[in-house]
Amino acid sequence: MTSGKARSAANPRKRLAILGSTGSIGRQTLEVARAFPSRLKVEALAGGENKELLLEQLAEFRPALVASLVPLGEGELAHPCLWLSLEEMTTHPDVDLVVVATAGKAGLAPTLAALRAGKEVALANKEVLVMAGEIVMAQAQAQDVTIRPIDSEHSALWQCLEGQRGEVARLILTASGGALRDLSPEQMEEVTPAQALRHPTWSMGRKVTIDSATLMNKGMELIEAHWLFGVPLERIGVVLHPQSMVHSMVEFADGSILAQMSPPDMRLPIQYALSYPERWENPSLPRLPDQATLDFRPVPPGRYPCLELAREAALLGGTCPAVLCAADEVAVERFLAGGLAFTDIPQLIAAALGRHRRVGHPSLKQILAADAWSRRQAQAWSPRGDS
Amino acid sequence: MTSGKARSAANPRKRLAILGSTGSIGRQTLEVARAFPSRLKVEALAGGENKELLLEQLAEFRPALVASLVPLGEGELAHPCLWLSLEEMTTHPDVDLVVVATAGKAGLAPTLAALRAGKEVALANKEVLVMAGEIVMAQAQAQDVTIRPIDSEHSALWQCLEGQRGEVARLILTASGGALRDLSPEQMEEVTPAQALRHPTWSMGRKVTIDSATLMNKGMELIEAHWLFGVPLERIGVVLHPQSMVHSMVEFADGSILAQMSPPDMRLPIQYALSYPERWENPSLPRLPDQATLDFRPVPPGRYPCLELAREAALLGGTCPAVLCAADEVAVERFLAGGLAFTDIPQLIAAALGRHRRVGHPSLKQILAADAWSRRQAQAWSPRGDS
Repeated sequence: MTSGKARSAANPRKRLAILGSTGSIGRQTLEVARAFPSRLKVEALAGGENKELLLEQLAEFRPALVASLVPLGEGELAHPCLWLSLEEMTTHPDVDLVVVATAGKAGLAPTLAALRAGKEVALANKEVLVMAGEIVMAQAQAQDVTIRPIDSEHSALWQCLEGQRGEVARLILTASGGALRDLSPEQMEEVTPAQALRHPTWSMGRKVTIDSATLMNKGMELIEAHWLFGVPLERIGVVLHPQSMVHSMVEFADGSILAQMSPPDMRLPIQYALSYPERWENPSLPRLPDQATLDFRPVPPGRYPCLELAREAALLGGTCPAVLCAADEVAVERFLAGGLAFTDIPQLIAAALGRHRRVGHPSLKQILAADAWSRRQAQAWSPRGDS
Repeated sequence: MTSGKARSAANPRKRLAILGSTGSIGRQTLEVARAFPSRLKVEALAGGENKELLLEQLAEFRPALVASLVPLGEGELAHPCLWLSLEEMTTHPDVDLVVVATAGKAGLAPTLAALRAGKEVALANKEVLVMAGEIVMAQAQAQDVTIRPIDSEHSALWQCLEGQRGEVARLILTASGGALRDLSPEQMEEVTPAQALRHPTWSMGRKVTIDSATLMNKGMELIEAHWLFGVPLERIGVVLHPQSMVHSMVEFADGSILAQMSPPDMRLPIQYALSYPERWENPSLPRLPDQATLDFRPVPPGRYPCLELAREAALLGGTCPAVLCAADEVAVERFLAGGLAFTDIPQLIAAALGRHRRVGHPSLKQILAADAWSRRQAQAWSPRGDS
C-alpha cells in the first residue's frame, strides 16, 4: 500500500501535485482546488515559463513542494518550501494525486514515475498515451491504478462506461470540426494562423486549437481512447458535433448509446478526475440550458487528412504515433510562425511517417529517439519537396 | 432463495411469463424472445381479448403455462398446457421473470404476487407504480428485487444510473410533445380523436397515444420515476424533445448530464429489461444515424394541464394518483368515443381530484376503492358542470 492510497482519516483532503500549473489546464485545476478547500490540498506545484503567474500561485496556495522551469530567487517566495525535480515531486510521500497538465513529451517521465509510485494520476497531457500508451498502461495495470482522463472526450467516455457491465460496441468521439469547418478546400490553403486560432466553442492553448482545426487532436484522442479503455481502433469513430455539448458517446452491443453532456468548460472534467467516484456540487460551473439544438454529422471523407494520418499511425503502432506527435508539433509551430501553409501540416506529417523505420513495442528510449528523429525531419521538410 | 434466482447452469435460458402478450408491448416482447431462442424461453403467456392472436402465439411458442381473458376450447390448442390464473402464473416455480405488459390496474395484483414470490419483474404497465408505488416498492425491497422498467424513459434513466456512484441532482424526462404539439390553444379545443392519435414518433396503443398528446403519460412517468429511483418529485423535470431519440437524462451533482439515445423502438428497452445486466447484439434493432439534429426546449407553462395535474396528484400522494389514473382512463375513453372535447380531459380529471377525500399510505383495497370512486365520478362528469 502506498502513502497515496493510505491517506488517513485525520487528513481527508486529497493532496495534489499539479504539473504545468501555469498552463490552461493547470490554472483551471487550481480554480477547482480553490472551490473545494476542505476536499483538495495543493501540496505541490510545478510551473512552466510564466514566472510571474507561478509566483502568484505559490503565494496563494503555499504548496510545500515546488518545481519550476525558470529559476526563482530565495527572496521571491513568501513561504518556506522544498525544491524538487518533477520526478521527486510526483513520487513524494505527501502527494496522493498527480495532475499531469504539461504539454508535449514533458509529461511522459513524470507520469511513469507517478504510476510506479502507485499515485493516482489525472492526465491532461495527450502525448503521454499517444507516444507511449503501451508502456504507460502496463505500468498503470501493474500498480492497479485507474488513469483519470481530463480531456473532455475521454472524461465523457469514462463517465458513460462507469459501472456498465454490458458489452461495448463502439466509442464515438465528438469533434466540433474546429475553426475552419465551414471553409471550402480552396479557402483552406489560404488560412492564416489568426483564422485557425478562432475556435468556435472551446477556449484553449494555441497548439491544441490548431490541432482542433486539423482534427489532429481527434486523431490523438482516438489513440488515447484505445489505450485508456482497451477498445480496438476499428471500433472507435468520430462524429462532427458543432455545439460541443455532447463530449462523447458509447454505443453498447444492443445499439443503445450513452452520451455525456455539459457546456464546454474544462473545469467539469478536471473536477470529475479529482472527485471520482464522487461528484461535487460546484455553483461556479455552468449548466446546460433547457433550450438547445444538438447537431451530429459524419466527418466528410478527405476533408481532415490529419485525422486519417493519426488513424494510420495508430494502426501501424510501435514508434509511429510518436513520430506523428513530434511532426505535428513542429508543423504547427512552423504554421503559427508563418512559415507553412495550413494545408502543409498533413503533408509534412505524412512525409515524416513515410520515411520512418518503425520499431515495434518500443522502449521509452526508442520512443524518445523516434521523437527526436521526427523533429529533425519536420524541421528540414519543405513544401517544395527539396529537403 | 427462490426458484427464479436458483436457475441452474443446466438450463441457462431465462424463463418468461408474459402478461398481456397480445398487446403492443407483449407482441414486441415475443419478437425479442424470437430473436434469442438460446437465451429466453417463453414459459407462460397470458393474453387479452384478441383470441386469434393468442392462439397464434401459443402455436408458435408452445408455452407450458397459459392464461386468457377469453375462454379457449380444448380443441383449439395444438399442445398440452396448464391453465392458470394470472397470480398462479406469476408465482409458478418454472417462471424466472414476469413481464407485466398489461394495461390499467390489471397489472397491480400480478406484479405484487410476482414480487412476493421473489421473481424478477419487468414492468411496462404504468399504472402499477402510479397507483401503488409505495406498496410495490416496499414489496420489491423486501424481496431485494430490482424492478426492470420497460418504458423507454425509465429504461433510459436506469441505464444512465447503472453503476454510478455520484450524487444525482435531477432526472430529466424527455417528451415528444405528442401529436398536437404545434397547435394553438384555440385549435386544441377542436381536436378530433383521429388527429390526437397521429403520434409523430412512436407507434403505440390508443390510450397511451392520447396520453402523449395531453402529456398525462409524462406526468405518470414522473410519478413512476420517483418510485423507481427514489428521487424526490421536485428533482424530476420534463423537457420537450420532438425527435424522441434521447429517451431521458440524469443530471449529477456536478452538472454533468448522461443521456441515453436510440431510435424510437420499444424492442430495445424490452430487450434490456430481459438481458440486464448483459447487452445482446440484435441485428433487427435499428441504429441511430450519424446525421441527426436533436432539439430540446422547455415545456411551455400552461400548455399541458394534465402534466401539472399529475404533478399535483403526486405531491398530494396517498390515493390521489390512483384517482388521477382512473379519471384519465375514463376521460380518454369518452374523448375517443366522441363524447368529450380534447380540452375537457384535464377538466374532468381536475374535478375528480378536487372532490376526492385523500387517504394517506393506502392499502391495496383503499387504492382500488379510490379507483372505483374516481371512475364513477368521471363517467358522471359533464362539461356543462351539471354532474
